[in-house]
Amino acid sequence: MEAVAARAGVSRATVSRVVNGGTGVRDAVRERVRRAVDELGYVPNSAARSLVTRRTGAVAVVIGEPETRVFSDPFFGRQLRGISRELSAADTQLLLLFVQHRDDHARIGRYLAAGHVDGALMFSLHDGDPLPAMAERCQLPTVYGGRPDWPGADRAPRPLFVDTDNRDGARQAVRHLLDRGRRRIAVITGPLDQTSALDRLDGYRDALGVADPDPRLIADGGFTAEGGERAMARLLAAAPDLDAVFVCSDLMASGALRTLRAQGRRVPGDVAVVGYDDLEPAAWADPPLTTVRQDVEEMGRLMARLLLRRLGAGPEAGEELAPVITAARLVVRESS
Amino acid sequence: MEAVAARAGVSRATVSRVVNGGTGVRDAVRERVRRAVDELGYVPNSAARSLVTRRTGAVAVVIGEPETRVFSDPFFGRQLRGISRELSAADTQLLLLFVQHRDDHARIGRYLAAGHVDGALMFSLHDGDPLPAMAERCQLPTVYGGRPDWPGADRAPRPLFVDTDNRDGARQAVRHLLDRGRRRIAVITGPLDQTSALDRLDGYRDALGVADPDPRLIADGGFTAEGGERAMARLLAAAPDLDAVFVCSDLMASGALRTLRAQGRRVPGDVAVVGYDDLEPAAWADPPLTTVRQDVEEMGRLMARLLLRRLGAGPEAGEELAPVITAARLVVRESS
Repeated sequence: MEAVAARAGVSRATVSRVVNGGTGVRDAVRERVRRAVDELGYVPNSAARSLVTRRTGAVAVVIGEPETRVFSDPFFGRQLRGISRELSAADTQLLLLFVQHRDDHARIGRYLAAGHVDGALMFSLHDGDPLPAMAERCQLPTVYGGRPDWPGADRAPRPLFVDTDNRDGARQAVRHLLDRGRRRIAVITGPLDQTSALDRLDGYRDALGVADPDPRLIADGGFTAEGGERAMARLLAAAPDLDAVFVCSDLMASGALRTLRAQGRRVPGDVAVVGYDDLEPAAWADPPLTTVRQDVEEMGRLMARLLLRRLGAGPEAGEELAPVITAARLVVRESS
Repeated sequence: MEAVAARAGVSRATVSRVVNGGTGVRDAVRERVRRAVDELGYVPNSAARSLVTRRTGAVAVVIGEPETRVFSDPFFGRQLRGISRELSAADTQLLLLFVQHRDDHARIGRYLAAGHVDGALMFSLHDGDPLPAMAERCQLPTVYGGRPDWPGADRAPRPLFVDTDNRDGARQAVRHLLDRGRRRIAVITGPLDQTSALDRLDGYRDALGVADPDPRLIADGGFTAEGGERAMARLLAAAPDLDAVFVCSDLMASGALRTLRAQGRRVPGDVAVVGYDDLEPAAWADPPLTTVRQDVEEMGRLMARLLLRRLGAGPEAGEELAPVITAARLVVRESS
């Protein structure tokens, strides 16, 4: 490589960049390097090239949840479908990592820092999660699912992420319930250490037009079916006169419907219900669920595409990258 | 390390083995090396050690199915739960890889061969799958889920695997139906390029006591709910007088029950149904499903433990390892 650099009259770094398909080299220089490579019969060693490019052809997908949650909520499978199709099309290997316990973070961080992957997609992170800081420290190109909200996330360069407009989606859901004449509207939230859950709660507040809604109308369902079941029971006990509930995921809504049925409340006659996601549990629910549709598979695709572009593997290498926020849209069915 | 080897009067390899906790070194020799290490103040460099041990602290779990199947059949989540708990307890990172298309095999093989993992667990492989040969070529310690049946799998050393006694499980299921007085017993199989599906079909033949059962009584449901639904419709069309069906997975049985209900056949009155797995779909089925229980989570744990022992990380390092075959047990419920 030194001989090639000398003959072309450029630095070793420039030769490396040309040989490895990097950007930022003028066409004339690129041509000169190519000629020198040909003349000297230089063949880049593939192990050495991988040391230089540090390319492994693999991307880690880190989900900040234990595998039991990942396998019980169709949200994750759908997001992964989008990611996996996009990575596959770019001949990039997907490695899926779960966060089983808080103690797993250090081990995951070590694996990511050790150069076994070219980049990472991280989603369903929780407040205080050390993974973003680890990714930043080892300069691992990373795209996040969901609005980042950790200390320093607003510093330049801002982390790349893909999200839906959760706040607007929640506003649409609660306005719809108000339009239907409901006046005691409860909310079952996700865990409030996640921005998606926080943003949906803010949307609920926006639509009601009050900064501090009646706390008896708010319960955390932890984004699980059982959590939704229990949260609904707490709400009915605290506010028996509620006439609607906005449930921040379809899975929790399926649990809430079980509780309403068990307590003899008719849906939507006594209590109108709106979910969030528009995944299988919404269509299978009895009655079918009014919900806020977010295109989860497309979000996965967008995350993967953003990372591939960040890695310079996509067609638009070198362009300016920015977070993507997709729209949410209310889908009205029988439950409201 | 050379100085340590010289002082202890052993080879560098022996020093390396002792320092890295390897086996096959006599106690006296081990003691001599330890003394030399102490006397010379030798501190093994951790990066160098990782070059020598080639330990990454990570294990690949390769499922021979696209992620859509993995996320729709609770079998996989349950198996992964067992694997993940065991690996986590050994502070070993789990990397999950799916096989989306046949073309993915080469890429997965490259990743595994490149030294990014210490070993692999592979399950739900299909006949002709090149992954076992790839693992063998790059000498990657591997444990399989399910009886191996590829060319050369019977050569020594036999591949390590964990399986349940599928053939016996199927025999129990069909004998139970015979005991209940059923005489036209159909079977819905999994894809016959998988040994679990083949073994269950053999058990069906065993119990009936015929080598070539009526082909109108056999249909492939591909181990999916929709496949079970369609297979049941084909069976009812080909053999309308059937009075029982042994369905080789609970998920397919849930589909078969849908078809029976749609065609007005009472279960078990007109048609008795037995599933396989004893996972959620069996308990949720209407009526609850008689099924063959295999402890899927435990199988996952056993696979992980076998691999950790193969890697010398477990407590029983150095012992002789053998495949494990767990028992299957009939669980009788309303559907039969």
